[in-house]
Amino acid sequence: MSSSDIFIGETIGTAILILLGGGVCAAVTLKRSKAQNAGWLAITFGWGFAVLTGAYIASGVSGAHLNPAVTIGLAIQGGTAWSDVPLYLASELLGAMIGAVLVWAVYYGQFHAHLTDPEIVENQPAEEGMVDQSTAPKAGPVLGIFTTGPEIRHMVQNVVTEIIATFVLILAILTQGLNDEGNGLGALGALITALVVVGIGLSLGGPTGYAINPVRDLGPRIVHALLPLPNKGGSDWGYAWVPVVGPLIGGALAGGLYNLAFA
Amino acid sequence: MSSSDIFIGETIGTAILILLGGGVCAAVTLKRSKAQNAGWLAITFGWGFAVLTGAYIASGVSGAHLNPAVTIGLAIQGGTAWSDVPLYLASELLGAMIGAVLVWAVYYGQFHAHLTDPEIVENQPAEEGMVDQSTAPKAGPVLGIFTTGPEIRHMVQNVVTEIIATFVLILAILTQGLNDEGNGLGALGALITALVVVGIGLSLGGPTGYAINPVRDLGPRIVHALLPLPNKGGSDWGYAWVPVVGPLIGGALAGGLYNLAFA
Amino acid sequence: MSSSDIFIGETIGTAILILLGGGVCAAVTLKRSKAQNAGWLAITFGWGFAVLTGAYIASGVSGAHLNPAVTIGLAIQGGTAWSDVPLYLASELLGAMIGAVLVWAVYYGQFHAHLTDPEIVENQPAEEGMVDQSTAPKAGPVLGIFTTGPEIRHMVQNVVTEIIATFVLILAILTQGLNDEGNGLGALGALITALVVVGIGLSLGGPTGYAINPVRDLGPRIVHALLPLPNKGGSDWGYAWVPVVGPLIGGALAGGLYNLAFA
Amino acid sequence: MSSSDIFIGETIGTAILILLGGGVCAAVTLKRSKAQNAGWLAITFGWGFAVLTGAYIASGVSGAHLNPAVTIGLAIQGGTAWSDVPLYLASELLGAMIGAVLVWAVYYGQFHAHLTDPEIVENQPAEEGMVDQSTAPKAGPVLGIFTTGPEIRHMVQNVVTEIIATFVLILAILTQGLNDEGNGLGALGALITALVVVGIGLSLGGPTGYAINPVRDLGPRIVHALLPLPNKGGSDWGYAWVPVVGPLIGGALAGGLYNLAFA
Repeated sequence: MSSSDIFIGETIGTAILILLGGGVCAAVTLKRSKAQNAGWLAITFGWGFAVLTGAYIASGVSGAHLNPAVTIGLAIQGGTAWSDVPLYLASELLGAMIGAVLVWAVYYGQFHAHLTDPEIVENQPAEEGMVDQSTAPKAGPVLGIFTTGPEIRHMVQNVVTEIIATFVLILAILTQGLNDEGNGLGALGALITALVVVGIGLSLGGPTGYAINPVRDLGPRIVHALLPLPNKGGSDWGYAWVPVVGPLIGGALAGGLYNLAFA
Repeated sequence: MSSSDIFIGETIGTAILILLGGGVCAAVTLKRSKAQNAGWLAITFGWGFAVLTGAYIASGVSGAHLNPAVTIGLAIQGGTAWSDVPLYLASELLGAMIGAVLVWAVYYGQFHAHLTDPEIVENQPAEEGMVDQSTAPKAGPVLGIFTTGPEIRHMVQNVVTEIIATFVLILAILTQGLNDEGNGLGALGALITALVVVGIGLSLGGPTGYAINPVRDLGPRIVHALLPLPNKGGSDWGYAWVPVVGPLIGGALAGGLYNLAFA
Repeated sequence: MSSSDIFIGETIGTAILILLGGGVCAAVTLKRSKAQNAGWLAITFGWGFAVLTGAYIASGVSGAHLNPAVTIGLAIQGGTAWSDVPLYLASELLGAMIGAVLVWAVYYGQFHAHLTDPEIVENQPAEEGMVDQSTAPKAGPVLGIFTTGPEIRHMVQNVVTEIIATFVLILAILTQGLNDEGNGLGALGALITALVVVGIGLSLGGPTGYAINPVRDLGPRIVHALLPLPNKGGSDWGYAWVPVVGPLIGGALAGGLYNLAFA
Repeated sequence: MSSSDIFIGETIGTAILILLGGGVCAAVTLKRSKAQNAGWLAITFGWGFAVLTGAYIASGVSGAHLNPAVTIGLAIQGGTAWSDVPLYLASELLGAMIGAVLVWAVYYGQFHAHLTDPEIVENQPAEEGMVDQSTAPKAGPVLGIFTTGPEIRHMVQNVVTEIIATFVLILAILTQGLNDEGNGLGALGALITALVVVGIGLSLGGPTGYAINPVRDLGPRIVHALLPLPNKGGSDWGYAWVPVVGPLIGGALAGGLYNLAFA
């Protein structure tokens, strides 16, 4: 795979993943969206089909990692060269940031209407330095369009949850070569990965909102910090390491288990 | 592909797309429908399976565009001859109008019960000339069975939203040749396109109701203007250009990007 | 295909179709079911996966018609011999009756709890002869586990709705040979047919509850008339011809259109 | 298939099945979960995609039984050697127990918050010896994360329901060889099995919560008895035989019917 294929596939694919994934969070959260309060099933299917769309578009170009935990897992397994890893990671982060900006473009008026509503502004979390990290319950509704956040802020449990959830995802991706007769991801593989992501969301998403992908959280968090949104509140950088470190550990563990037990 | 194949496949396929897509809007909107208030998930899955059904029926005949944005994207990519484009577009528009009439036939009694309910009539939008376009919030419930309409009427944002949403759809359709080993749309391709449409609806449908297809909006809008529905209100022609122009631009951009980056 | 294959496949397959399809209606209707009030999406997906399960089990044996409208459509198209039609129809009806009895077995305690609840009994529809057919709005909740019934009792519209909905289903089934490279129904075909049925339910099920299959309605209606359920009310035989005649016409029209336009 | 393949595939696959399946029950039940009260559709799709994920991961290794009823059905059919059965069963039980412990790890804080909430504690079922088995309506909410329990405690009906529901599942698994051209479970087979499980849950899950798998109930019940959860209540051992015996009978009947009618 050429460097330009990796760059194009991962940047565009991850941008579409985050556009649709962040989009469903905006859709169910913001005032004057037709999907406001559409519920947890809408969020989990929305993220799953975001994976489907991004993976389907990128799979024939770059293999559609779209997620550093996938890249690390595949590198440990041997499916991806370590020398390609930095370009994968950089393209994924860039794509995630582009996707978050596109969410803002699609929901521009809804963001404005929501963030200037007096009742909602009052209940936004305070600026970063003023948040008591031990009691802050979760990301405010607008930050939650960009990033994940825990319902109970307990860093050890939060990391463990992200490790386990990501481990399941990466193990499913690594073992698909055992099912697909070595044809690579392909259309059916993208569909099943997408439905596995719906399943992880439904089952393991309750505590932290299931980042299971470092750039899915970090890229949009950077964009949240940079965008000129009125009354947007802090970006909760105190939590930002959890959805980066947890998924990377989960991906590495899945790669290691694959080599030990499935190879 | 012969002209009669294009005409038959696109007319029948688009009619079924709009019959089922408009049908789910009627089902969740109208009084005395078993599905009234079934919610946003019902609408988005309903439209997705409308695409599945129409595409599955037409794919072996005409390639199942069912959407001028698909036709334009494929023409730019080179998958469809420019000389076939006018027949594709005309057949798609005709099919969309037939589908909208069939929705009326299926829900005939429900339309009558709904539109003669005194409480509902009072809240219908006024006749065309009397609507203040800057404040009219969205299509009234019966117009909304036929057409899309924005939650916030801001033409620039509305067009941008339709461009981005359609771009994602057409890029997914154009890249499927990279996944399906060149077998054309086929059954699995139709399924994945349908689920991508569910995903676009869940994620990007909040601001405008996601036309992502010029004839999906224009065909039923013409039928709404012509049908003898009591108390039907205006057809909101002031907005009608948005779901035509936005998707055409989105489809063209996807075709151009495909040629630049994926070909 | 041997006669015993047709008999075994159609009887078992249709029994499972009605067991799961009637089951989801019982699940969302009856008191002391965990799924009570689970909503329209549960019903439509439940019926769709009922089709998937029955078709998947029977497709390798009898071709998995499970529906006289499919049998008629295929006979007109030429995919099924007319001499096999009577055995298909008889097996389908027998299977549907077995399935309805199994629903009763699975929900035995729930039926009893529901039908002996004083508040519910009072609102059951009266005995057959006492129903004013022009105003009776729909099947009572327990009859509705067995049969379909219209929200608005207008026989012409009701028949038209069933014709159109069944036409879409049968056309999708007939055209799948154009997508599946002639491998018969198969696993992917069963899945897509199932999702088409979900789509028809979501989109066209609002007025009549979408029988789209004569035995799906007639078989369980006979069982309702025979079962010793307390306070069960009448079986609404005045409506019984609609979900038999409508789907048969729809299936025949789809077969005819296929021969004219797709063959 | 080697013994180590069976052990690895069944233990890991069943652990992931129960992690995701128990996970969705925790997600919709526990306080301070983002998915609390997400409803019956979330539970049924969550369990279905739990099957998809576990089966997809294990299918290339051990054939992905993940369920003693599958193992018994395949042994009767002849697809699995009787000499392998004990190792399958032991691995499945071990995996189910590991999965239940992982649910506890993922939802550690939510379990604590839920079980120390004064209002909830008061409504927990009493200790085992104090429950009147004839009137106890169902498992308390925390036991219900681990085990199934009937809405109406009538052992004969409960066993019949589990027999019928499991029979449908195992018959679908046994007949898939007739659809998949003998390629084994594979990716598409795993997907269809998963959706059949969603269908069984929607349609037949109302009375007992559909164990349809002996270790799905027994493994987590043992873990519930052992875990140091505060105020956890009894483990309802009086019901424990039903979701073991019913599914085993259902699986055996499906194997027998397959040999009689489909082989």
